[in-house]
Amino acid sequence: MYLMRIGAPGAEKPVVRVDDDHYVDVSDLTPDFDERFFGAGGPALLAERVATGPRQAFAGERIGAPIARPHQILCIGLNYSDHAAETGQAVPAEPILFTKSPNTLVGPDDDVRIPRGATKTDWEVELGIVIGRRTSYLDSPEEAAAAIAGYCVVNDVSERAFQMERGGQWSKGKSAETFNPAGPWLVTPDEIADVRNLGIWLDVNGERRQTGSTKTMIFDPYVIVHHLSQFMVLEPGDLINTGTPPGVGMGHDPQIWLRPGDVIELGIDGLGRQRQRVVEPR
Amino acid sequence: MYLMRIGAPGAEKPVVRVDDDHYVDVSDLTPDFDERFFGAGGPALLAERVATGPRQAFAGERIGAPIARPHQILCIGLNYSDHAAETGQAVPAEPILFTKSPNTLVGPDDDVRIPRGATKTDWEVELGIVIGRRTSYLDSPEEAAAAIAGYCVVNDVSERAFQMERGGQWSKGKSAETFNPAGPWLVTPDEIADVRNLGIWLDVNGERRQTGSTKTMIFDPYVIVHHLSQFMVLEPGDLINTGTPPGVGMGHDPQIWLRPGDVIELGIDGLGRQRQRVVEPR
Repeated sequence: MYLMRIGAPGAEKPVVRVDDDHYVDVSDLTPDFDERFFGAGGPALLAERVATGPRQAFAGERIGAPIARPHQILCIGLNYSDHAAETGQAVPAEPILFTKSPNTLVGPDDDVRIPRGATKTDWEVELGIVIGRRTSYLDSPEEAAAAIAGYCVVNDVSERAFQMERGGQWSKGKSAETFNPAGPWLVTPDEIADVRNLGIWLDVNGERRQTGSTKTMIFDPYVIVHHLSQFMVLEPGDLINTGTPPGVGMGHDPQIWLRPGDVIELGIDGLGRQRQRVVEPR
Repeated sequence: MYLMRIGAPGAEKPVVRVDDDHYVDVSDLTPDFDERFFGAGGPALLAERVATGPRQAFAGERIGAPIARPHQILCIGLNYSDHAAETGQAVPAEPILFTKSPNTLVGPDDDVRIPRGATKTDWEVELGIVIGRRTSYLDSPEEAAAAIAGYCVVNDVSERAFQMERGGQWSKGKSAETFNPAGPWLVTPDEIADVRNLGIWLDVNGERRQTGSTKTMIFDPYVIVHHLSQFMVLEPGDLINTGTPPGVGMGHDPQIWLRPGDVIELGIDGLGRQRQRVVEPR
């Protein structure tokens, strides 16, 4: 199943995509794809409607993030061995956790806004995990599969100067408005042959900058969810950004930073693609 | 004004405390002290009711956190010069930001639960700031006063081994369930003569462990809110823990860690006091 939210920012309607041109409206079954929806059963609640409900044609609506603003956006750092190398940091022994402000979430094709005072704004294509149930102290990574509602593409936009040079922890460089485009779809696990073997890519102004596969992740999605569940309670609808493959701007020589007018395109096999325009600070 | 939430966990009722024995019920004016309430005007919406509404007597109800689960719990690290010294770290040039999972929020007298596998669970009495409006790019610290809905006592409970020895960033040691008791009250700024000169203390098992004053903060509440607003959009109802004075368990020689059966009591002048029992992992 492919969950989408379409419509104006803050007024998105939850729908299920059935093909490139059609969707089924499920807004009478749930007001949103939010914590309450996932906690109550999530996509399974929609199956009958999707099978029998009327198809409607997409009509150029804006696409929002495929989930409502979550309780948390958790992020794993340095989770591809070749990305760790390009940033000059050691491969971590355990998943590195940092967080982003949940209100950074925007649609897959919305503008990305450079923050005021920024000098080193960077891209990061990532596989996003959406949590499907309240989750704590999982016994094993195998148990994590049942706690995952689905997957999506995210761009974990980062301001490196704020992240690295302004006070020690990373959140300061990860939380500016528009810094977490997600979508276009939340794809349920049954639609994906192997989440540990998906091609992942990102272009800036038509030039390929990141290419990789989730098969080179150091910690796979199940290991990550199991690990995080030992330290905190994950809520339904929480989003986990699982780290980025090589090719971020910081990793180039010389380094490359985003500027107003740039266009970022990114995607993951089977999870769709995004396109953002980079705009001036407000 | 002293905002409180009383009743069973998850079913708290918003009220305004008028004295030690009485409150005014405002649950018909707002379902909760949440983002929507603060964004719509917050405590000012309650003034007429508090002036004219019927007084009710407290009857031993449980006290919840004085705000609903916020969009974010932001935390400032090493914000008292003598606390930085006891942890062996330099006084920071800018506020150090880290985050806690918002679902760590509990009432001021609720149990604090040791996480599984924990070995170094520690206390931190702190002044909490609650944001009163959507806030971004403040021009000066002076402007921050109008963005603050009020203040409360918080215990920024921390598992030092998870914080320092499990993957680089601090959030992993700050986010276990029950790790952020808050309250008993959210006190509006007009009730506080000078938030930059409040006595602050914490006892463990009746022994004084932390004593200080907010006057020794490195970055005061207005500087903190102004600073954070440069990096992210603060939402109404967001909670900011502003750092702890000297005397945490990590700072003792030998170090002291919390154990099941311990009792923590803490408070800040004019903001009330808390009492937590420390309990076994579940």
